[in-house]
Amino acid sequence: MSAPLTLHGYYRSSASFRVRIALNLKGLAYRTAPHHLRRGEQNSPDYRRINPQGLVPALEIDGQTFTQSLAILEYLDETRPQPPLLPKDSAGRARVRALAQLIACDVHPIDNLRVLNYLRGPLGQPDAAVAGWYNHWIAEGFRALEAALSTSGETGRFCHGDAVSLADICLVPQVINARTYALDLSPFPTLKRIADAALSLPAFERALPANQEDAE
Amino acid sequence: MSAPLTLHGYYRSSASFRVRIALNLKGLAYRTAPHHLRRGEQNSPDYRRINPQGLVPALEIDGQTFTQSLAILEYLDETRPQPPLLPKDSAGRARVRALAQLIACDVHPIDNLRVLNYLRGPLGQPDAAVAGWYNHWIAEGFRALEAALSTSGETGRFCHGDAVSLADICLVPQVINARTYALDLSPFPTLKRIADAALSLPAFERALPANQEDAE
Repeated sequence: MSAPLTLHGYYRSSASFRVRIALNLKGLAYRTAPHHLRRGEQNSPDYRRINPQGLVPALEIDGQTFTQSLAILEYLDETRPQPPLLPKDSAGRARVRALAQLIACDVHPIDNLRVLNYLRGPLGQPDAAVAGWYNHWIAEGFRALEAALSTSGETGRFCHGDAVSLADICLVPQVINARTYALDLSPFPTLKRIADAALSLPAFERALPANQEDAE
Repeated sequence: MSAPLTLHGYYRSSASFRVRIALNLKGLAYRTAPHHLRRGEQNSPDYRRINPQGLVPALEIDGQTFTQSLAILEYLDETRPQPPLLPKDSAGRARVRALAQLIACDVHPIDNLRVLNYLRGPLGQPDAAVAGWYNHWIAEGFRALEAALSTSGETGRFCHGDAVSLADICLVPQVINARTYALDLSPFPTLKRIADAALSLPAFERALPANQEDAE
């Protein structure tokens, strides 16, 4: 029996959510080590030794600890290839990675908790301005994503054809965030259709923040 | 003769800089299509058809157009494997991707031009607050990166051993940005040493913003 997998995460963390989906899709059992981000537990010296960035997720697997959700997803896909999270052809892989990165690089980090805290703290922004910021960057990203998905013949039931990929794994947590902040999703019908299709799968549904043991 | 490669970029764009380094390392000749970001040229309808995000870079190659710098780098590495930009082992690849993503996801997008413009415009922040923001996120990322690099036996002449990887390709443009904003790099000796080693290579040196045809 191999050592158990441990996922350092937080139920509301979108990046942790991505890794939970992938672990579920791959059928990998794991233990959760929750770090309460709003209480600052990710900044404890113990956790900083695991991840010097003090961000979640981190995944303990195969005797090592990996950080950065997209790097973890690629590692899982290389070492546990079934079902694949990337298409076989390099052009398809580039398309899927670009869709995933549109969210993981250009939307999510700008709306991350530490950034919102900086807006509230050092920049003294009121809640309304912080909420405006949050929705601005999601809407900006979703407009581009909707354009990319709705104009491509490669979009299928999911972001790339009819198989789940890294792109869907990044899309769904961002859609859930947008719903939490009551962003109107009607301008993004393709994206909403794909997120709904993904959420009908148990691997996505079980990974939802509300279904985690540390959910409040 | 295969069709020429076209890189849609901007001399000051760090993400374009990454792709320039990779094209140089792989020995691939390319044509530059500059889009002046500070004049908003990336928002023209023509360019939005190429990249709905209105961001650079985009690379025309093999009859297709790819976006998102990290996805482009992986595509180049899959289709033009020499010299490799990722180690052969999955654990090493995960480490390199995580180091690259620490910069490409958690530093660079938060300091991107469109974010700084939002701070100046809708949030009415003065220049000093914008500069403070800029350096805060670089320093935050560099502290974590320095800790990750200085405590790992896998760090060598470059971020991962003695061969250039995606991590170095992401590191160098961020270091150049930090220097432009006069950030003190002395707390980050490992990172500075690696960036200097990389910049001694012609592939990095030729990719510098100041060496581009659209440089001002």
